[in-house]
Amino acid sequence: MDNQRAADILANVRSSNPLIHNITNLVVTNFTANGLLALGASPVMAYAKEEVADMARIAGALALNMGTLDEQVVQSMRIAGTSAAAHGVPIVFDPVGAGATPYRTETARSLVQELPVTVIRGNAAEIANVVGEDWSIKGVDAAVGSNQDVASLARKAAQALGCVTAITGKDDYVSDGKVTYRISNGTPLLTKVTGTGCLLSSVIAAFLAVEKDAVAAAVSALAYYGVAAENAVEVAGDDHPGSFQIEFLNHLHRTGGEAVRQQASIHRVE
Amino acid sequence: MDNQRAADILANVRSSNPLIHNITNLVVTNFTANGLLALGASPVMAYAKEEVADMARIAGALALNMGTLDEQVVQSMRIAGTSAAAHGVPIVFDPVGAGATPYRTETARSLVQELPVTVIRGNAAEIANVVGEDWSIKGVDAAVGSNQDVASLARKAAQALGCVTAITGKDDYVSDGKVTYRISNGTPLLTKVTGTGCLLSSVIAAFLAVEKDAVAAAVSALAYYGVAAENAVEVAGDDHPGSFQIEFLNHLHRTGGEAVRQQASIHRVE
Amino acid sequence: MDNQRAADILANVRSSNPLIHNITNLVVTNFTANGLLALGASPVMAYAKEEVADMARIAGALALNMGTLDEQVVQSMRIAGTSAAAHGVPIVFDPVGAGATPYRTETARSLVQELPVTVIRGNAAEIANVVGEDWSIKGVDAAVGSNQDVASLARKAAQALGCVTAITGKDDYVSDGKVTYRISNGTPLLTKVTGTGCLLSSVIAAFLAVEKDAVAAAVSALAYYGVAAENAVEVAGDDHPGSFQIEFLNHLHRTGGEAVRQQASIHRVE
Repeated sequence: MDNQRAADILANVRSSNPLIHNITNLVVTNFTANGLLALGASPVMAYAKEEVADMARIAGALALNMGTLDEQVVQSMRIAGTSAAAHGVPIVFDPVGAGATPYRTETARSLVQELPVTVIRGNAAEIANVVGEDWSIKGVDAAVGSNQDVASLARKAAQALGCVTAITGKDDYVSDGKVTYRISNGTPLLTKVTGTGCLLSSVIAAFLAVEKDAVAAAVSALAYYGVAAENAVEVAGDDHPGSFQIEFLNHLHRTGGEAVRQQASIHRVE
Repeated sequence: MDNQRAADILANVRSSNPLIHNITNLVVTNFTANGLLALGASPVMAYAKEEVADMARIAGALALNMGTLDEQVVQSMRIAGTSAAAHGVPIVFDPVGAGATPYRTETARSLVQELPVTVIRGNAAEIANVVGEDWSIKGVDAAVGSNQDVASLARKAAQALGCVTAITGKDDYVSDGKVTYRISNGTPLLTKVTGTGCLLSSVIAAFLAVEKDAVAAAVSALAYYGVAAENAVEVAGDDHPGSFQIEFLNHLHRTGGEAVRQQASIHRVE
Repeated sequence: MDNQRAADILANVRSSNPLIHNITNLVVTNFTANGLLALGASPVMAYAKEEVADMARIAGALALNMGTLDEQVVQSMRIAGTSAAAHGVPIVFDPVGAGATPYRTETARSLVQELPVTVIRGNAAEIANVVGEDWSIKGVDAAVGSNQDVASLARKAAQALGCVTAITGKDDYVSDGKVTYRISNGTPLLTKVTGTGCLLSSVIAAFLAVEKDAVAAAVSALAYYGVAAENAVEVAGDDHPGSFQIEFLNHLHRTGGEAVRQQASIHRVE
């Protein structure tokens, strides 16, 4: 897994224009759709229990995000996930806010048990809470200052959950329980725009739609995403979160293989 | 129907500031509201079955969009549409994703049968699927490369559905089954921002609120919208979908009669 | 209550980074989250009846907004508000569109009666309709040209409702029924971007999370918000509502104590 491989997978996403079925939260629907369009994927949002099985079946990947979960949307996630699994469609699961309330923690745990999730993506607190490790969370944001070992958490979570685990933060980690990568791209401004984590989960889904090696897909998606963010903040300026949001969409569109080859910071850590 | 007429109807929208009741999808609510405000209309979103009849009654027009439909919102569309019809309020219907799943196709067909829709707006695949013509769809986007005759589809759909039909794409077509217009404004960047079709349906509603001739209202709305997009892309640049979204809102506000008179490309084709 | 005090409370918000639980409408979720992040607060949106009591309990403040109300969200507001009250968490209530339909008016009246609201914020028509005064409303916007005395309405509403009342418009008024302040910051462009009132209610919640004097919190929030808007429009330009939205987010982030001290226009009127 190196920068050239990441660039190649990005090129495959662009040439394939995969259909990504998102069941995501009310806060980020627009930003997620625009981010996927900027990347070169084809987003669709569909929530009704009457149609999610049909939509998941024809999608290149399914992204499930529980940011504003309720019983109806959880039911739709189950139906969509079951259909995706039956048709070989990869699933990304984003356990937003796991640990913040018992309802979120329990829902996240039951969904990862029931569905054959391909990649789970969250911050360290969310992933820790899904697997029962101790890690504090504030609303939907991981508490800062934790000095636990994130690489080790990613490995343990991948083993416990039986799926590739992507933990994002200052550095990002991707692990399948045996091999673990650190990706060190991005900018702190990503934490000042809502939904950048949620969109990232859908971007991983787009990479999974064209790449069967889930570790390679997730690592590539994270590197591409971080490179786009780095270049966006160069234009927007550090203290301009509004402009950053717009420039980030611009750079999700404009970031190509050359930028990924030159800027991606991908390291195998175990 | 000429450019001067389109400019006049735009001026009427601005001086009337019509209230547009939208029952639209979760992805585009914010963009739709901001687009209507930029135009000079007054948007309101109301979904609850307890109030949609009251809101539709006092609106200048009602825009129904099934982008993220479920049974509750479909029920509210029926109630709102019935109230609109009873009080002479024009209805625009946007059958987002008709053809993508059986649920969408069937819901779209039943709504156009039950409600006295004034204008239906969609891409070629959506309109074809509503009237039972063969046209492939990918998620919520029309498959490209179809070489069917869109003008003919618009005419046939208008006849079959008994309402004015607006089909948007590279060129746009508006037909009432007898007279058909082609509008050739716009930019490909409109396909890189989510909700530009949905907002357009609400913009048509705003034009219908001040203009009883539904063909003239729809043609004018499409020309205005396309002219604003052309001028927005001049500022934003071709490969900047984030900036385009913002400049498009700016130009929906700034595009006036003079720009429409000079730039609108309206042709009667039959 | 003077500019220095407003600047001090703003500094407290930034150093405390309070968690704000929002139950808000579908149109403004993204803008509200981004605005709170830009301010330096920590937003969370949670709606499910299964979790809102838990989330409200751990929040610094709770913001309830009925912009796209339905029975489920109203039920969640009741549960969240009851939990907030039991745990000393202040509540801001935004009665969006009260007066536009009977359902909105009745829901707003019952919620302010049932819950110990700390601050109610709305335009003059909404507040008047909640307390049974005559004031016309168009959709969710106050009818312009009313020449009633807004300061007097704020005072009367505060007395009738037993909570601090903030009425926003060309000038803003804050009253607890005895003391009333006028804040004269802002720009007309705020009316051309959807959700600026809704976000403001959540910003007031963030100020309440760090300041027990609800009048001081609300006055400070309004002054800060108006100053940020004034500086944003200087950059964006008067006829650029798209750019204004982005610059406003930039300035919610960049506006600090110095700008508030110099530009805030706070006057005690009774």
